[in-house]
Amino acid sequence: MNKVIDIFDSTLRDGAQAEGISFSVEDKLKIVRTLDDLGVSYIEAGNPGSNPKDIEFFEKVRTISLKSAKLTAFGSTRRRDISVEEDKNVQSLIDAHTPVVAIFGKAWDFHVTKIIKTTLEENEKMVFETLSYFKKKGKEVIFDAEHFFDGYKANPEYAFRVLKAAVEGGADCLVLCDTNGGCFPSTVYDLVKKVKETFKIKVGIHAHNDCGMAVANSIMAVEAGAEHVQGTYIGFGERCGNANLSTIIPNLQIKKGLNCIPEDKLKNLTYSARKIAEISNISLSKREPYVGNSAFAHKGGMHIDGVCKASESFEHINPELVGNKRRFLMSEVSGRNTILEKIRELNPAIKKDSSETEAIINRLKQLEHQGYQFEGAESTFELVIRKQLGKYKPFFELEKFKLMTEQPTQNGSSASALIKVKVDGKSEITAAEGDGPVHALDRALRKALEVFYPELSCVYLTDFKVRVIDSQSATAAKVRVLIESTDGETSWTTVGVSTDIIEASWIALVDSIEYKLLKELEKKIKVYV
Amino acid sequence: MNKVIDIFDSTLRDGAQAEGISFSVEDKLKIVRTLDDLGVSYIEAGNPGSNPKDIEFFEKVRTISLKSAKLTAFGSTRRRDISVEEDKNVQSLIDAHTPVVAIFGKAWDFHVTKIIKTTLEENEKMVFETLSYFKKKGKEVIFDAEHFFDGYKANPEYAFRVLKAAVEGGADCLVLCDTNGGCFPSTVYDLVKKVKETFKIKVGIHAHNDCGMAVANSIMAVEAGAEHVQGTYIGFGERCGNANLSTIIPNLQIKKGLNCIPEDKLKNLTYSARKIAEISNISLSKREPYVGNSAFAHKGGMHIDGVCKASESFEHINPELVGNKRRFLMSEVSGRNTILEKIRELNPAIKKDSSETEAIINRLKQLEHQGYQFEGAESTFELVIRKQLGKYKPFFELEKFKLMTEQPTQNGSSASALIKVKVDGKSEITAAEGDGPVHALDRALRKALEVFYPELSCVYLTDFKVRVIDSQSATAAKVRVLIESTDGETSWTTVGVSTDIIEASWIALVDSIEYKLLKELEKKIKVYV
Repeated sequence: MNKVIDIFDSTLRDGAQAEGISFSVEDKLKIVRTLDDLGVSYIEAGNPGSNPKDIEFFEKVRTISLKSAKLTAFGSTRRRDISVEEDKNVQSLIDAHTPVVAIFGKAWDFHVTKIIKTTLEENEKMVFETLSYFKKKGKEVIFDAEHFFDGYKANPEYAFRVLKAAVEGGADCLVLCDTNGGCFPSTVYDLVKKVKETFKIKVGIHAHNDCGMAVANSIMAVEAGAEHVQGTYIGFGERCGNANLSTIIPNLQIKKGLNCIPEDKLKNLTYSARKIAEISNISLSKREPYVGNSAFAHKGGMHIDGVCKASESFEHINPELVGNKRRFLMSEVSGRNTILEKIRELNPAIKKDSSETEAIINRLKQLEHQGYQFEGAESTFELVIRKQLGKYKPFFELEKFKLMTEQPTQNGSSASALIKVKVDGKSEITAAEGDGPVHALDRALRKALEVFYPELSCVYLTDFKVRVIDSQSATAAKVRVLIESTDGETSWTTVGVSTDIIEASWIALVDSIEYKLLKELEKKIKVYV
Repeated sequence: MNKVIDIFDSTLRDGAQAEGISFSVEDKLKIVRTLDDLGVSYIEAGNPGSNPKDIEFFEKVRTISLKSAKLTAFGSTRRRDISVEEDKNVQSLIDAHTPVVAIFGKAWDFHVTKIIKTTLEENEKMVFETLSYFKKKGKEVIFDAEHFFDGYKANPEYAFRVLKAAVEGGADCLVLCDTNGGCFPSTVYDLVKKVKETFKIKVGIHAHNDCGMAVANSIMAVEAGAEHVQGTYIGFGERCGNANLSTIIPNLQIKKGLNCIPEDKLKNLTYSARKIAEISNISLSKREPYVGNSAFAHKGGMHIDGVCKASESFEHINPELVGNKRRFLMSEVSGRNTILEKIRELNPAIKKDSSETEAIINRLKQLEHQGYQFEGAESTFELVIRKQLGKYKPFFELEKFKLMTEQPTQNGSSASALIKVKVDGKSEITAAEGDGPVHALDRALRKALEVFYPELSCVYLTDFKVRVIDSQSATAAKVRVLIESTDGETSWTTVGVSTDIIEASWIALVDSIEYKLLKELEKKIKVYV
């Protein structure tokens, strides 16, 4: 069997220190379930001593039975000059009732004397006594040697004395922390090796990303003998973040053949990253290794050509291994092939040098110039091509809409929309209210059209994104609105651009409805044929 | 003098391959100026053979005189079975009239035989002849050994034969490319060392970020003897991006004492990153090492406490070295000290346990729960504290507004706003039109208030950001609107949250105006005292 590497996730503790992150108790429970499903070894769930919200959470989380992960509470060694029994933070860790505790202690003499202001000897005692106490209480104890690397640079002898106190206190694992994130991979490699040779127990790594090398530092630590890797699943944390586990896991498991999570869970890596981003209410960077939306997206013409011939030519792994997928992007640089592929789905007779291809490319360039982007809005892209090919007939015509928003509000709804549409010569006028103008407009439009197209009743919007394209000119700047819709079975995305957010939303809404009606029509035609 | 490392920026070439990036000629010229001001050694500005827009660009860029950077055109070795003179791409590189060309050639046997479909010998000739040709034309020639590391793994002998052909062709620098981004730091270190020992010329590194280790791979290459580092300034590029130069430069120069850019330019690193992000129309990640907005942001109470005692306790460098700054964030985790610091600016008598502090913290929690975030909206934060302390008197009262948006539009403006406000018992009613509802509302509000407060005439909005907070419920989801305003001298940011984008914008607009009037009032009071 391959060597096992413990994956220790601190999204809920170190991750919560990131700017912009604020978890509710419910969010935390969802993240615990997601990480446990994925099969990580440890979930560091909070610091019950420092955050009252964490106490409620630790009570609730006890009711969940975890399949793979061990729940871990995080806290400091006891404070100076008191006993562990007197220390409220230590006691709150006992009250958290987790099988594992992660205890951090100072490994840098400067921090001992200047920040917590005690003697080097008392700090060693704090480490030893706190760890012995938790061991006597039957806990698995992970020791986080805070600032180990900076500490070693300043006073190597003292940094090792702190590790020795932890080992004598009964630590199950010595985690070497690059707390300030300033270390380089070769230093990490050398020091992990040294610690591993000196102490015959499990060694772990906790890296921060202040030099952009947290992942590499973790990998180098494993190459030097570490068997425990701490990080946060999608990398967020204090300052520049923590080592990104969604990168480290496939790096170790796919590239180095080590065991981090159950083999059949690898394909959930991408889904889990997107889910945790969603719960955390942040957007996952497109460029995120392995799990990002662009991680296997090809835009350069030569690259697309290469990947079509043999995927390994420009892909370091098969995207399906991690549950991600390959994408070919539409753009000036991608050349005509990608666009042609889309065109041929609609009309196989068209060639690379047909006048239709030329016309479509010109139209796409115009739209891109206006601020459109079709990456991620494939439905609008298809409609653009159809319009150019003459394979498109509008399903309705707008006669007018009028939107009103007012303050103070009347009867709770702040916005109301009046709309008049025409289908096959028959007009329909109606109105609806909503929370805000786009909501009211969406409701009114579908209410009017359902008279003609009852199949629209199952359509609803699932996502609505607004991007200010040229934010420097403020409220008169252009906005790009992306709308994701679903009918419960499939979902599709459309885009609209305008200086007016209402108009941009309207364009995307119309495309969404036209696209749905088009697909319904195609289904009917197929049935008749 | 310290060792010099060439910084080779490919934002305009490899960066342009990133999803979502589309440069105009004007954008490219602006980026050339920014990079040259910063003092990089080479600017790879495009591939004149593959992109017609680049031809126009190369004509225009010739009129700029660069201070430090050498302009570089990028292209392939000649195609198989033709002469360099017959090859249009080779000729377009000559026509670009740059002092330097970067020529890529295949170093992986699989790519030679399966992708470009020629013999191993012909590929060597393509490298040799193309490089000799450019050398004869007086160019400095950088050879990019595409897929060098994968090539070496598959056929080490052939990968070295390709390098040998390049050296014999006159290459000034051999750049080893991890084109697919799948390499690990220790491999990069070993192979760079080997190449450096075999060929006695300058060696460079070109790393991609598919394993999240492009920066570390570049650093390890330099440790192994490389003296030329390729990347893109803020890391974007095909798939997961390229090695991030805004991280690599300070890593090498501040941490390792090597010379990358003029020492007095280091403090422009942050500004340049934000400028290039702005030109490229992407948002720079907050967590970006060195240059991100959160790179030196502290949220955990213990960290803030530590940094106040000694900044090196939780900062790997002084943020001012790279032109960034330290920030303390307001949040539940940051403890009362940060909030107290802000409160005391307004009322120095208030203590940590005063009832006012309690009330302010409760109010902040309520607002955070509603979706507010004060990180980056310090002006709204100050107003919240003032309201709780009774140090706030509204400058006006809204009687009502009515906003109308319609399609088809009348006379060009899609939206109009009617507003009635009251100041000291006197009402003013007025109206304005705009591109979209927020634009119209902003204009109408300031038009009405300028009657009472002429000092508002110099205020205008410079940024307007919309964030959907809970996007899964689509148009009825909450949005957070951030508005940045300026009076030409200072700028300030305010925030509003609502399910209705108009209401959220209104809240932020009102705060912006109240804040300005408050500061004006304070100035007057100071003058009288």
